Amino acid sequence: MKHQIKVEPQGTILYCEGGSILLNVLQQGGFMLDATCGGRGRCGKCKVWAESDEWDGKKEILSCTTAVNSDLLVTLPVQEKFLDRKSMLLKTHTFPVELNLTKKFLKVKKASIEDGKGDVERILAELKLDRQVNLAVTKQAMEILAKSKEGITVVFDDQELIAIEQGDTTNEFFGIAFDIGTTTVVGSLCDLITGKVLVTVSATNPQRQHGGDVISRITYANEGAGNTEKLQEEIVACLNEIINKLCKEAKVCTKHIYCATVVGNTCMHHLLLGLNPTQLAIAPYVPVVQRELRVNPEEIGLKINKQGSLYVLPNIAGFVGADTVGVILATGLERVSEPTLAVDLGTNGEIVLNSGHKMVACSTAAGPAFEGAQITYGMRAAEGAIEKVEINNGTFKLKVIGNSKVKGICGSGLIDLIAQLLKHGVIDPSGRIVEPDLLSSDMAFLMERLRSNGKSYDFVLAFPEESLSGEPIVLKQKDVRELQLAKGAILTGIRMLLREVGLNMTDLKQVYLAGAFGNYVEVESVLGIGLFPAIPASRIKAIGNGAGIGAIKALLSDQEKERAELLAKNIIHLELASKPEFQDEFIQSLRFPVQTSVE
Amino acid sequence: MKHQIKVEPQGTILYCEGGSILLNVLQQGGFMLDATCGGRGRCGKCKVWAESDEWDGKKEILSCTTAVNSDLLVTLPVQEKFLDRKSMLLKTHTFPVELNLTKKFLKVKKASIEDGKGDVERILAELKLDRQVNLAVTKQAMEILAKSKEGITVVFDDQELIAIEQGDTTNEFFGIAFDIGTTTVVGSLCDLITGKVLVTVSATNPQRQHGGDVISRITYANEGAGNTEKLQEEIVACLNEIINKLCKEAKVCTKHIYCATVVGNTCMHHLLLGLNPTQLAIAPYVPVVQRELRVNPEEIGLKINKQGSLYVLPNIAGFVGADTVGVILATGLERVSEPTLAVDLGTNGEIVLNSGHKMVACSTAAGPAFEGAQITYGMRAAEGAIEKVEINNGTFKLKVIGNSKVKGICGSGLIDLIAQLLKHGVIDPSGRIVEPDLLSSDMAFLMERLRSNGKSYDFVLAFPEESLSGEPIVLKQKDVRELQLAKGAILTGIRMLLREVGLNMTDLKQVYLAGAFGNYVEVESVLGIGLFPAIPASRIKAIGNGAGIGAIKALLSDQEKERAELLAKNIIHLELASKPEFQDEFIQSLRFPVQTSVE
Repeated sequence: MKHQIKVEPQGTILYCEGGSILLNVLQQGGFMLDATCGGRGRCGKCKVWAESDEWDGKKEILSCTTAVNSDLLVTLPVQEKFLDRKSMLLKTHTFPVELNLTKKFLKVKKASIEDGKGDVERILAELKLDRQVNLAVTKQAMEILAKSKEGITVVFDDQELIAIEQGDTTNEFFGIAFDIGTTTVVGSLCDLITGKVLVTVSATNPQRQHGGDVISRITYANEGAGNTEKLQEEIVACLNEIINKLCKEAKVCTKHIYCATVVGNTCMHHLLLGLNPTQLAIAPYVPVVQRELRVNPEEIGLKINKQGSLYVLPNIAGFVGADTVGVILATGLERVSEPTLAVDLGTNGEIVLNSGHKMVACSTAAGPAFEGAQITYGMRAAEGAIEKVEINNGTFKLKVIGNSKVKGICGSGLIDLIAQLLKHGVIDPSGRIVEPDLLSSDMAFLMERLRSNGKSYDFVLAFPEESLSGEPIVLKQKDVRELQLAKGAILTGIRMLLREVGLNMTDLKQVYLAGAFGNYVEVESVLGIGLFPAIPASRIKAIGNGAGIGAIKALLSDQEKERAELLAKNIIHLELASKPEFQDEFIQSLRFPVQTSVE
Repeated sequence: MKHQIKVEPQGTILYCEGGSILLNVLQQGGFMLDATCGGRGRCGKCKVWAESDEWDGKKEILSCTTAVNSDLLVTLPVQEKFLDRKSMLLKTHTFPVELNLTKKFLKVKKASIEDGKGDVERILAELKLDRQVNLAVTKQAMEILAKSKEGITVVFDDQELIAIEQGDTTNEFFGIAFDIGTTTVVGSLCDLITGKVLVTVSATNPQRQHGGDVISRITYANEGAGNTEKLQEEIVACLNEIINKLCKEAKVCTKHIYCATVVGNTCMHHLLLGLNPTQLAIAPYVPVVQRELRVNPEEIGLKINKQGSLYVLPNIAGFVGADTVGVILATGLERVSEPTLAVDLGTNGEIVLNSGHKMVACSTAAGPAFEGAQITYGMRAAEGAIEKVEINNGTFKLKVIGNSKVKGICGSGLIDLIAQLLKHGVIDPSGRIVEPDLLSSDMAFLMERLRSNGKSYDFVLAFPEESLSGEPIVLKQKDVRELQLAKGAILTGIRMLLREVGLNMTDLKQVYLAGAFGNYVEVESVLGIGLFPAIPASRIKAIGNGAGIGAIKALLSDQEKERAELLAKNIIHLELASKPEFQDEFIQSLRFPVQTSVE
């Protein structure tokens, strides 16, 4: 029996068979609901309000665990307009252009009985070139020479004639650098003549509806025939939407976009190219391909000039992808002579160490805690998110994005919060939220924020009157554990890389912190939670969206592409889980640092 | 108002609007009717029998000039099974193989934690190769490594890895050479390991329904938007049908066909590639492209392995196409040291002269007379066609294909006939069929075959009782004129090429006669009609389907491809019509040679 589902506020009517899972019905109907946990009823991101004749009034339900057994009136949550931090970091830069991709304006003689050369041959004669051309260029020669009195513009990739345009279009020459994150996708439109980043826009990765992390995407890809293709279609559609937005904003015609680059983790890389990611999730975690790929845009349906090309940066390993290569391009990590570390904080933490002599890399399953996911009131950086916490002089102060009432807490806010709570003894080094009577006397004002839930204590961040929903916003013990696991994973990776090259934490002369997140978090807080113990704050440098910057550099420079290829070949990848000392290191890394004093 | 058309013997029912042209309706319904004249009501090849309630009994009508104004019962002519002369000449040869296209069998190590290289990287490591691969190969690496325990076969084009196959398929490696004629299309399946021509099949060029010669095809291409694409679809479908037949006959799988070559005149070349042929018909007659093209099979829809490639041989000029290049490859014309001529007799006559020092080429609009078209009872070499004529000892003898009653006369029969009639004074050197009383006394037995039609005389080849239709089969004065124009055109071309390099007819040491036709015609008859005056018969050599042989040689050898490219660049093309002496030469060339004696 079919049931009707009316979706508000859009007013759309959907139909489904009885017993269908509401989340699937909504997703198939084109409504993108987050399902960070992959529809396993855990993350709570797919909550909707629903009404039915079968029950009383409105109920908030998890759409991923609701089977539709009656007609429903569903109200979707208001879409958050999250802060576009990743793209904000990419604006108004200019990079050096070193490209073999070039344009040239040309006038071509008309054919005559004396000079009866073919269209293609007359163009090549003008260029003093004798090479094969492809069929697409041959067709353009025919079409454009026939109507082009004013001259033509030829496009070269090195010595190869790849396209012909009518008239003088030498100044209309663009490329797009994509950074495909598991959560956020960013595209930057660049001028191939000036090297300027013209516009950057971002979008939520539509694959998010199948799960928030790479493992849930891989699981989804495996669940049904055609799912890999579906994931590919989704991400390609997202890139095409970004292309449209970029072109509209910069008033650029898509046909003048002759190249694109892509960075992303190995799973995002595989899904973009339609490569089955299954083996990434099974030991020995090998990717289908590591080296760079040059892809015909039409092969994957990317809507740039089809005679241009898409350069996909190389992967280092199954879990150290092209995004990490991008970070290295951005930092110049391979060129330093003293021990230097680059950490890309995301759902997976990728870590690369240059000892000064060799480069080693690993990845750690940090989980999405740094992005505010799987935290009870975690959310992305958007209006209503706590982004900073201060405990000072007997007061507890929050900085909330948009100066609104509190809705939740974002990743940088969470680190700040936990660092502050550690510092003031509300959380002890084992990660436990302490009982109120263990608080030091000058922290007594925090006592009212500690509320027992029977098993452990919750820390109240916002009381009902400060909260957007009217419900208290709290940090739960389990949330601290999530962050602890995440920071423990990263720290384990760092320690094992150092051990591999025979160095200590104190030998590190510089730590690059990549990820949009790194630019918004307080370095003191990062140190406070013990992500990088025993390093002076001055040695930590946030570099913003390193992966995205790397993609732009590679877009604008063939030398940077070569750098990327060399990096991917020469970096030694460490598979952490295969090392016998891994478990021990991990357990040691979970503890928070002992706080020295409270000023 | 719609009318119904029932088509017999198939029994198909078609519907059309009142006023539609019957030929178009039949063609759109999938019935391939010849329309050599391009539907201009001249060639009579589209005749069908039709019945209607509006008229009495069955009528034979020209479908191209019949507007449908009532329901019709149409009976199509029986399709001639023409003799496959072009393909008969290509069987059982073996040619040297010199290809950079190679296969290699390989075993690939499984991935492990210690060797966590990607699928592609493990294959390349086994090959000791470090190169980019494309996305298609990357996908194959993924699919095939997962299920291939016994090993894989890699396909290389030079150093480039172009495909991967499961298991050991090193002996399954094939290519197809196509010769696309205006009338007949021939394909030869070749073994890329042994160089053997395995099977050759031919088909009628389906574009024939839009006209028998290149000019009518160009006219059709110009008549409507999308017509060039339609002509392309037709020829590609024809090639795909040939591929299927070849593979079926040789028990070869199409996916093992990694390369194909194509020769054809410049118009056929353009139509295959979807290039508009319009400018070929307008001075200065320039092609879109002269040089060779390497085309992705999918770009034109050719159903061989999509990771293979189609090599299209270069054109020399607008009317001297890749087919002529093929003839030169077949003969080695560029390597001779003494004056040598190659003539390809077809709808267009292409002529190439190597003076021993330089090579010049031209084309002449010979028209389709040599193929039996535009001759009143002309037909292709098929059952019922006169293929040989002998006048001897007071008898007039015919050799008819299939020993059947006479239906018409094919090209080689026509030349034989006219040479014999010239020799015996029935036609005088001006080309006139003489009055009966001008016949010499010993030819009096031919008198009964000369019949006045008021204006001129017809020569009866078969009396009603010898004819399949029961009507007399005759040679008309206009038919002699058609042949005269054709041989005049060829002779003009030869004379002007010789003049260009400062040689005389008698300087020619060798003449290669290409075209299937050349193998079936008597050399004496060719000399008898004066196609090559003043040359001993021993210097004329028929080489069969030279264009097709050239396509096979290029298929099997990269050196032959290079030869083709050099030839196309270095041969000097002479545009006859632009020369002031052309008209005068042409008029002189029209006369038949004065017959020395009748033995």
